[in-house]
Amino acid sequence: MNAFWSQVTRELSPYVPGEQPRIANLVKLNTNESPFGPSPLALEAMRAAAADTMRLYPDPEATELREALAAHHGVTPAQVFVGNGSDEVLAHAFVALLKQPRPLLYPDVTYSFYPVWAQLFGLSCETVPLDDGLRVRIEDYRREAGAIVLANPNAPTGIALSRAEIARLLEEHADIPVLIDEAYVDFGGESAVPLIADHPNLLVVQTMSKSRALAGLRVGYALGDAGLIEALVRVKDSFNSYPLGRIALAGATASVHDDAYFRQSCARVVAGREVMTRELTRLGLDVLPSSANFVFARHPARDGAAFAAALRQRAVLVRHFNKPRTAPYMRITVGTAEDTERLIAAAADFLKG
Amino acid sequence: MNAFWSQVTRELSPYVPGEQPRIANLVKLNTNESPFGPSPLALEAMRAAAADTMRLYPDPEATELREALAAHHGVTPAQVFVGNGSDEVLAHAFVALLKQPRPLLYPDVTYSFYPVWAQLFGLSCETVPLDDGLRVRIEDYRREAGAIVLANPNAPTGIALSRAEIARLLEEHADIPVLIDEAYVDFGGESAVPLIADHPNLLVVQTMSKSRALAGLRVGYALGDAGLIEALVRVKDSFNSYPLGRIALAGATASVHDDAYFRQSCARVVAGREVMTRELTRLGLDVLPSSANFVFARHPARDGAAFAAALRQRAVLVRHFNKPRTAPYMRITVGTAEDTERLIAAAADFLKG
Repeated sequence: MNAFWSQVTRELSPYVPGEQPRIANLVKLNTNESPFGPSPLALEAMRAAAADTMRLYPDPEATELREALAAHHGVTPAQVFVGNGSDEVLAHAFVALLKQPRPLLYPDVTYSFYPVWAQLFGLSCETVPLDDGLRVRIEDYRREAGAIVLANPNAPTGIALSRAEIARLLEEHADIPVLIDEAYVDFGGESAVPLIADHPNLLVVQTMSKSRALAGLRVGYALGDAGLIEALVRVKDSFNSYPLGRIALAGATASVHDDAYFRQSCARVVAGREVMTRELTRLGLDVLPSSANFVFARHPARDGAAFAAALRQRAVLVRHFNKPRTAPYMRITVGTAEDTERLIAAAADFLKG
Repeated sequence: MNAFWSQVTRELSPYVPGEQPRIANLVKLNTNESPFGPSPLALEAMRAAAADTMRLYPDPEATELREALAAHHGVTPAQVFVGNGSDEVLAHAFVALLKQPRPLLYPDVTYSFYPVWAQLFGLSCETVPLDDGLRVRIEDYRREAGAIVLANPNAPTGIALSRAEIARLLEEHADIPVLIDEAYVDFGGESAVPLIADHPNLLVVQTMSKSRALAGLRVGYALGDAGLIEALVRVKDSFNSYPLGRIALAGATASVHDDAYFRQSCARVVAGREVMTRELTRLGLDVLPSSANFVFARHPARDGAAFAAALRQRAVLVRHFNKPRTAPYMRITVGTAEDTERLIAAAADFLKG
């Protein structure tokens, strides 16, 4: 604390990301990164962009990237907004759309950055408990609300709502903005993007950090009605005119164009998730049904924090969230086949002790 | 406008950056970019970082880059904050430090993003007029204030305050945060960084977009007392954990290490500014004394907007700010020797007409 801090800074409880330790030979299954690299065409585009033209500002409107995303998702460029990772896109959406006189609703167990943005930007919020199976129930959102944000699939549970359920939510709340955070949708969820045409209150946010293996590049985006996108642009142009540099624009655009590689990577992660789920189940863990690139799992007789610590001792890093409803669980990213073998061996070693 | 927009979004007047037109053979002197490319070592580091490791998140604390900047500026890493361009750093500083119960002071003619951030984040502000020579007078800031922000050298005038004047300002306002925005300091200004040791209320912001020719990479930073830096970190970790990607971190770090290239580039720009000033003066323009990589110039008998439009017709792009005190002037970025020749030829052609 310091005499020069603003009042809001004194009151913040910042988000804590998963750790990025520099330990050799670590199996890193704690931050939901892709076990496979990005598209080789994306890497080539990034290297080509690292030229003397870096002296020039990037295109503040990210025209080519937005055109590529629009074509990929079947929307228009005016329905696409891009930002410095989906976290920045979400932050702008909190200011531009979700900050309303009535409270923002989100699940009690979800992405833990939502309450942080709410505090930073002064939103009033209400959490809606997941059911006993840690599922979102659409009918629980039938209450006075100014806006709704749902991660789908939800994190850290991995459980997805169907597109039909999202459509029902949108219809029941047609008068307020509804944000669907689809960071993990490419691993088996049903995207809400086809609902944009009929729902001007829907904003869908996606990221290139997971399914496109570009966590190191920082590119996320939003899709929605042009009116919602314009609100995001207004906030962005009041914050930072050039959030994406030339290399980020080039790499992200090339990634979108390499659809074959993208589909193959996602399929490999889904296959790896099935193996991981089967093996963890064989060891006696309960694994929630995941549509993401991670699983949320607990052992009926072991403490979640102790299990995670035991894995860490064995050089396998998973994420543990020390809150009442999530404490029994570990969130484990789907890695390579070898990563999964090492995870299972470490877990088996701990369980036999 | 749209029914789903938040109240603050309805009220915003976003910043308008200089245009980035795609016109072949254009002499682009409107956005203060470097006429020379970035350090070849920085480009090499960027290309090397474009590898499979892009699947992993970057270091959220930017440890290596902060260490390099600390060594370069003679401060400790705890006195360094980095962000996605100095605009993001400034935005966070508005929230973390400059938002105080009493008003923020800044000159009536300065970087036009200041009032935009103030509006986005709900700061109360007061502008302090420059004197008749468009200079900042420190004694004019002796009034009730919650914080002060000054660009030094100021933009778009290019006029710099001495370090002694900044020290006097800091002493007269020791109880409030004072931000010195040194985007252009490397072209002949006196940096306030040596004052950090004795002034815990001083935050200095610099950018890699101008003197390091990395506008396309998006890296800026702040230097100051560790207590001020901690406030910025709290806001950043409540907004976006990973503002700088792996390639930005690698390229920026390598640029800082290549001091010889940096000094040579700055010297070339300063030499080019002297030629441009001399030639514009010869054509009858008044050129303010610039310590930046641009000049602010007017012709006593010609309208600034008409002059800028005439140059544009001749494929030379400069910036014109259509506000009462700045309207007679054009802000002209220092380019290559050839750029200056084409500027002077275009201006001479217009003036003979």
